[in-house]
Amino acid sequence: MNLSKVDMPAILQQIYEEVILHYGEGKVANYIPPLSRVNPRQFGMAIRWVDGEEHFIGQAETLFSIQSISKLFALMLALDIVGDELWNRVGREPSGMRFNSLLQLENEAGIPRNPFINAGAIVVTDTIVSHSASPVKRLEQFMASLSGNPGNRFDSEVYNAEAATGFRNAAIANLLKAMGNLEGQVNDVLDAYFKQCSMTMSCLDLARATECLANKGRSTFRSHFHGEVMDKRINALMLTCGLYDAAGNFAYRVGLPAKSGVGGGIVAIVPGHCSVAVWSPELDEYGNSVLGQRALELLTTYTGSSIF
Amino acid sequence: MNLSKVDMPAILQQIYEEVILHYGEGKVANYIPPLSRVNPRQFGMAIRWVDGEEHFIGQAETLFSIQSISKLFALMLALDIVGDELWNRVGREPSGMRFNSLLQLENEAGIPRNPFINAGAIVVTDTIVSHSASPVKRLEQFMASLSGNPGNRFDSEVYNAEAATGFRNAAIANLLKAMGNLEGQVNDVLDAYFKQCSMTMSCLDLARATECLANKGRSTFRSHFHGEVMDKRINALMLTCGLYDAAGNFAYRVGLPAKSGVGGGIVAIVPGHCSVAVWSPELDEYGNSVLGQRALELLTTYTGSSIF
Amino acid sequence: MNLSKVDMPAILQQIYEEVILHYGEGKVANYIPPLSRVNPRQFGMAIRWVDGEEHFIGQAETLFSIQSISKLFALMLALDIVGDELWNRVGREPSGMRFNSLLQLENEAGIPRNPFINAGAIVVTDTIVSHSASPVKRLEQFMASLSGNPGNRFDSEVYNAEAATGFRNAAIANLLKAMGNLEGQVNDVLDAYFKQCSMTMSCLDLARATECLANKGRSTFRSHFHGEVMDKRINALMLTCGLYDAAGNFAYRVGLPAKSGVGGGIVAIVPGHCSVAVWSPELDEYGNSVLGQRALELLTTYTGSSIF
Amino acid sequence: MNLSKVDMPAILQQIYEEVILHYGEGKVANYIPPLSRVNPRQFGMAIRWVDGEEHFIGQAETLFSIQSISKLFALMLALDIVGDELWNRVGREPSGMRFNSLLQLENEAGIPRNPFINAGAIVVTDTIVSHSASPVKRLEQFMASLSGNPGNRFDSEVYNAEAATGFRNAAIANLLKAMGNLEGQVNDVLDAYFKQCSMTMSCLDLARATECLANKGRSTFRSHFHGEVMDKRINALMLTCGLYDAAGNFAYRVGLPAKSGVGGGIVAIVPGHCSVAVWSPELDEYGNSVLGQRALELLTTYTGSSIF
Repeated sequence: MNLSKVDMPAILQQIYEEVILHYGEGKVANYIPPLSRVNPRQFGMAIRWVDGEEHFIGQAETLFSIQSISKLFALMLALDIVGDELWNRVGREPSGMRFNSLLQLENEAGIPRNPFINAGAIVVTDTIVSHSASPVKRLEQFMASLSGNPGNRFDSEVYNAEAATGFRNAAIANLLKAMGNLEGQVNDVLDAYFKQCSMTMSCLDLARATECLANKGRSTFRSHFHGEVMDKRINALMLTCGLYDAAGNFAYRVGLPAKSGVGGGIVAIVPGHCSVAVWSPELDEYGNSVLGQRALELLTTYTGSSIF
Repeated sequence: MNLSKVDMPAILQQIYEEVILHYGEGKVANYIPPLSRVNPRQFGMAIRWVDGEEHFIGQAETLFSIQSISKLFALMLALDIVGDELWNRVGREPSGMRFNSLLQLENEAGIPRNPFINAGAIVVTDTIVSHSASPVKRLEQFMASLSGNPGNRFDSEVYNAEAATGFRNAAIANLLKAMGNLEGQVNDVLDAYFKQCSMTMSCLDLARATECLANKGRSTFRSHFHGEVMDKRINALMLTCGLYDAAGNFAYRVGLPAKSGVGGGIVAIVPGHCSVAVWSPELDEYGNSVLGQRALELLTTYTGSSIF
Repeated sequence: MNLSKVDMPAILQQIYEEVILHYGEGKVANYIPPLSRVNPRQFGMAIRWVDGEEHFIGQAETLFSIQSISKLFALMLALDIVGDELWNRVGREPSGMRFNSLLQLENEAGIPRNPFINAGAIVVTDTIVSHSASPVKRLEQFMASLSGNPGNRFDSEVYNAEAATGFRNAAIANLLKAMGNLEGQVNDVLDAYFKQCSMTMSCLDLARATECLANKGRSTFRSHFHGEVMDKRINALMLTCGLYDAAGNFAYRVGLPAKSGVGGGIVAIVPGHCSVAVWSPELDEYGNSVLGQRALELLTTYTGSSIF
Repeated sequence: MNLSKVDMPAILQQIYEEVILHYGEGKVANYIPPLSRVNPRQFGMAIRWVDGEEHFIGQAETLFSIQSISKLFALMLALDIVGDELWNRVGREPSGMRFNSLLQLENEAGIPRNPFINAGAIVVTDTIVSHSASPVKRLEQFMASLSGNPGNRFDSEVYNAEAATGFRNAAIANLLKAMGNLEGQVNDVLDAYFKQCSMTMSCLDLARATECLANKGRSTFRSHFHGEVMDKRINALMLTCGLYDAAGNFAYRVGLPAKSGVGGGIVAIVPGHCSVAVWSPELDEYGNSVLGQRALELLTTYTGSSIF
């Protein structure tokens, strides 16, 4: 690995110039109006090194809807609350299916394949709901505390739109309840889930909030994690399951643990070195940011930072 | 990572003493007589460092049937022959199903999910068969050249047993043919596939034969690979798909790219440092060696050698 | 066919004596308390001939929860309202899966296989909801008018229990909504669906209410159906889909169009001759009445009344 | 039912004139050359009454490849040999999937859903192979004896083409063998299966050969069946499973037990009255004859001969 921080501004500039040539190759998420209205031609990228130094370029400080990236933070919080007991209710294997599929759930006794498909993430959120007096507030504060930015908040417009159209997630939650793998009330869990998905953060916020995964569990802004074990294990889950049914291909091309969201954000980890966040709203057919993936691929190519 | 070679003999000794406490927890593969007759209480482990130094313990020089580990070598050879064209015929995603399932194949237009499930491995072998005058000999020589041990040979007894009972693989090959993703004759491809699975090697042979994956594509015994790119990409495939439907859990617990076989062998890679091979015939419900997995988990625990 | 009405009292007596030997072979539905509390050792049977004559035995006048038999009446009503347009939203093929499966729905673009699996029945009810000012009252009155018994009513205790535990049906309705095949509000449609399933009728009520299917569309108590076409077609649907994933076996053994419910009731049609209703609460593994099926099998054996 | 034989010539003439307007709406089977070369614009229809009288029109005496209609005769023969024991190895439920799917087989422990999907038919043929010294000859003679036409023979050109391209059936047979539901050698069973599918018969031959199903098990040309029971049960199977995944729709529209083949033939039964065979090579998307289905629908419309 040749991760020289000295060269990083030039490398980010080069990445920026290359990726913007790909504007127009994807499509902004259009299932709810607040996402479909986002200007597609935006790109931001931020890197936070384990020594606290930061590099960024483009719209790295623009707030966007983190969507499924919130599953990563909810997982951290749930593991912080119940530890390995979580794995009695959700698996750790790639699903081989679309992130919002109900098929596997029905075939596999209500145990979602992993915490990053919607069914698994709903179980994770249920864990938080069942162990918290104010689960929604707890989730919001947890994310804001990781990024150190109290401005990180749920977006009520996005939340309302998710809640009004989230029939597939409602189907998943009801099926989980029917199969005995949901402790809370269906509506309570869905409410918390839709809220967490509507969190807004910037690339810089995300790079800071995932510092703990690059830095053996240590976070500059928050200090009470399980430490070494948890970061390695969450990174493993991200590598095998973080980009849904494109995870294998992303591992093949990029080689970094990562988690994406349909808002166009992706966070990636170079263990022991840095956390990286990219954002660009145009998505490919798998729901992953076109420019974001390309930027991460270029980063590993230019720096040899693949974990393999 | 604390991979100090000086401590390795003591670490191997400690691993050995711990894993043999698990004898009796698994079952030797019993689908063909030559495998079912193997003495279950055997354990070997070998490590080859990128500088050529080697450490090993137990039955590390005992020959055993490598079975699905051969899929790794066949993949190297096929990539050497056709390069990235291979990916037009086989995917790079985890399958989420048993290694010998036909379901996904039927649902996904005959494109196997990855080169490590049986369907994908048969397509890989088909690629070699279609581009070789003597495919079986070519496969045998390729594997022996990687390990530098001309004594590595196909076991005809194992081959005959595989061929006589391999109806599920015959079903897969016929379905691939029906769906237009098999170039060769069904029987020719199955013959080569059953032969490659019957290869016998020792832990030491396997650690040497996978040196190239730990050492940026460089092999002491063979010198004409694509280099840096291929090793990283094959490692990524092993991490996401190498242990079938237990790959995610193995990544979570061990955190190393690896490939297993029902003969009880597992090879694992610590990129930039070493290749590791373990062997013990008793298998868990997923068909992976009980002691082998435990030994690799201990290795990463004692040395911090996870890639995450 | 030897359907001599003169012999019928003796035949019913003989059937009665034979079937009660099978008490204890099944289990009463236990997913909601109101059903689980029903005395299992009850049996009733009623036959209504197309000339208006009736024969019955046992608890033929005892009210019970008709459950899925209501799907038959909802289908009649929906066809009465929208005619063949219904088939744009629901298929006419056997499903090959459990009545409450979500798999096929997800695989087949939200078009349920037939109107008798839960997903299809929910679409049928949605059709009624979307075309009625007071859908629940309309359903109740429709059923009562067919049987000519104004005492047929929804059971609020059963309804409340269904609504409180119907998570799987809620999952199905939400998935239908997500896939664009539900016009009404999810909660409105579920409310009507749970109410129709909670209808209570007796064997005699049911035999009268299905007279129209035996008598070329003519009903003694209600007079405004599509006539000949509808009865034949609904009978065909009952034969191929009426007993869920046991429909083929029932056709093989009994050979009559029929529709069952988990309350233990079954209605069957001998086209041109009579409608038959049986009831006994103990169910087999498929959710069909053990004694009810046996009674119908004996009826066809004794009278040669199979349609084949 | 208004099945007046006096009117039948006029009715057949009217049907003929109506169906030929549909030439061009389907496509001739093209998976093997001998079928793809058949002149698509042909139509024949034959009716045999239980009193032995016959009516026919068009190319009712032209020989064609009966293909899957042979499954009906193989089923009769297998039931004649092993009786109800057959049902330990094959089910009686509609499959809800394409006739040549492997999915259900893998999910359901190797027990095919019914004897008319390919997997079930291969088990049926295996039963005959396992109980016959010369199974192929026995099948050929059985069919010829039912039709009373010694000219009915396997077509070697069709057989060779089926055998050379039947990879999907080979996949099914191998999977059955792998799952323990094939007694014979894979190649022996496939050979017999491909041969039975290559049988050539005319509409008149088929109407005669299925007389036993319309006439309570009595056949003019052959006299040793199980009688009443068998015909009713086979008719029930045809109604629920005879037209693959279009069986429900066919029952809805036509209302007669029937079995189709991709050669363009369909046989249908009016129990107690007559057997009917139609043939026209153009197929719809489900592999059923376009004109054949239309002719049977018109027959039931004109004569009220639906069983419902």
